Amino acid sequence: MAATRASGTNAVRYGTMKDVVLALTVVTADGEEITTARRARKSSAGYDLTRLFVGAEGTLGIITSVTLKLAGIPEKIAGGVSSFDTLEDACNAVIMTIQMGVPVARIELLDALQVKACNAYSNLDFPEMPLLLLEFHGSEAAVAMQSEQFAEIAADCGGSDFVWTANAEERNRLWKARHSAYWAGRALAPELDGLSTDVCVPISRLADCVRETQEDVAREGILAPCVGHAGDGNFHLLVLFDKNDPQEISRIEAFTERLAERAIAMGGTATGEHGVGQGKKRVVGQEIGSAALAMRAIKQALDPDNIFNPGKIF
Amino acid sequence: MAATRASGTNAVRYGTMKDVVLALTVVTADGEEITTARRARKSSAGYDLTRLFVGAEGTLGIITSVTLKLAGIPEKIAGGVSSFDTLEDACNAVIMTIQMGVPVARIELLDALQVKACNAYSNLDFPEMPLLLLEFHGSEAAVAMQSEQFAEIAADCGGSDFVWTANAEERNRLWKARHSAYWAGRALAPELDGLSTDVCVPISRLADCVRETQEDVAREGILAPCVGHAGDGNFHLLVLFDKNDPQEISRIEAFTERLAERAIAMGGTATGEHGVGQGKKRVVGQEIGSAALAMRAIKQALDPDNIFNPGKIF
Repeated sequence: MAATRASGTNAVRYGTMKDVVLALTVVTADGEEITTARRARKSSAGYDLTRLFVGAEGTLGIITSVTLKLAGIPEKIAGGVSSFDTLEDACNAVIMTIQMGVPVARIELLDALQVKACNAYSNLDFPEMPLLLLEFHGSEAAVAMQSEQFAEIAADCGGSDFVWTANAEERNRLWKARHSAYWAGRALAPELDGLSTDVCVPISRLADCVRETQEDVAREGILAPCVGHAGDGNFHLLVLFDKNDPQEISRIEAFTERLAERAIAMGGTATGEHGVGQGKKRVVGQEIGSAALAMRAIKQALDPDNIFNPGKIF
Repeated sequence: MAATRASGTNAVRYGTMKDVVLALTVVTADGEEITTARRARKSSAGYDLTRLFVGAEGTLGIITSVTLKLAGIPEKIAGGVSSFDTLEDACNAVIMTIQMGVPVARIELLDALQVKACNAYSNLDFPEMPLLLLEFHGSEAAVAMQSEQFAEIAADCGGSDFVWTANAEERNRLWKARHSAYWAGRALAPELDGLSTDVCVPISRLADCVRETQEDVAREGILAPCVGHAGDGNFHLLVLFDKNDPQEISRIEAFTERLAERAIAMGGTATGEHGVGQGKKRVVGQEIGSAALAMRAIKQALDPDNIFNPGKIF
């Protein structure tokens, strides 16, 4: 189970997928089926097993059912886009939006290469510049007000006019770029394979981390469109590479390690959503330090025979 | 560390205190200081130790520092109150508010006895009937709109006119009843001791649970004012009793056990915020069932010599 995806998009308002999981049933190593929590919105009845099993990448037990918190469909959903000269400007608009407490439901960042890919793939005509996509939820008046607030922020940060709409069809058209981002990225070079990776940094460092990463991409001559769940300081790269070229594979591995180390050096994490798996074991070991001892002790306690997804995380 | 308190009030908008904890440093049983997470808003780098240690009631390690997510002070804060003939009506207003997605920051419920206590203690003059206190955060227009929305809901549920204000001084006066609730409750019988207990149920069962509990209170002739973090389905009773009367102590213990069992039977939990400690070990054992095995295994793994708060939870 992927750790924290909220429909694959930024989740400023609703938190991550983790946050909407109320309870799980899990089959443990001794074959018991346990229930980690009740249906109440909060509990302090013992340890928080729900959050321990969510994101454990299947290494502690097998999740057999999930109880989720539901949210009503908002009265109105508004969506809009604004283009920026630089990633830094776009990130600054995100930071101002969060800091001013504008209750944005989603803010997604596409870099110029991703916009180019989306234009080609989905027959769109956004300027090939960094793009922010936003979504606001609430009453008709509330989403209008929030959209106007963001329009001012975008203008202050040198963005293009913020084009927004509360019409569902129009909004879907604006957001189409985001929804097809992965396949659009792959279509940049259909002959190559794609390695999707993510990091997450404190939002104040998002611009730095994205900019330094793009400099690295340029130095290496890699093709790697970028999509960010910018409101969380989380961004993804789709690194396109030839899986039959061992030299390229090493180069890509070194690049993704540098990316993870850069995020860690900025107070962030080697992975915001995707998890550790096999590929990030070394760098996550570096990130978590001696906390690994506690994690290993828990793994040993709950899965003494190492039957659950062995070889992952540790 | 209390498990999930958010300033002792309901936290519909911001989640519970747990949700704003980004990271901890913890001294473990072997004397290591570990850091459970980084400053990023989300991470999937290994197990979620942050949530495991928060709410573990000190049984897994000693928390030595806490990193919190910050939220900006809202542009405007509006507060208001409405009285209801019955607890059921008040609970129905809460349920409608949550279901309609009105973005309320806080909804607190006081029963008639608690209102009476607060009137006496804080020199207020609310009708001695169930009272809802609300708080809305946002722009001036947003809080006005939300207050009007709630006023309609309150009217639909038979509540009194919803008196609200965005003036800080006025708002503090309206909320004074809530802020002094504990001491007001104690002042109902200064010669007695107070046992504070809480349960949490799915919000759809809140009215049932509060009503059945009040019937139990009436049958037993107990003095127990009630304050609910109603938006979460969580409520607290301050049970006043004579600690020198062993018979009364047994009666109170049996009452709080029935309360916990009632919440569990409704799909809720024996404790939403206060935790297990020593007093709720038996009933929480009943609630969590075989999940206790996993919790005990974790306790054994992280604290093999049982040096951290022994005798609590298990």
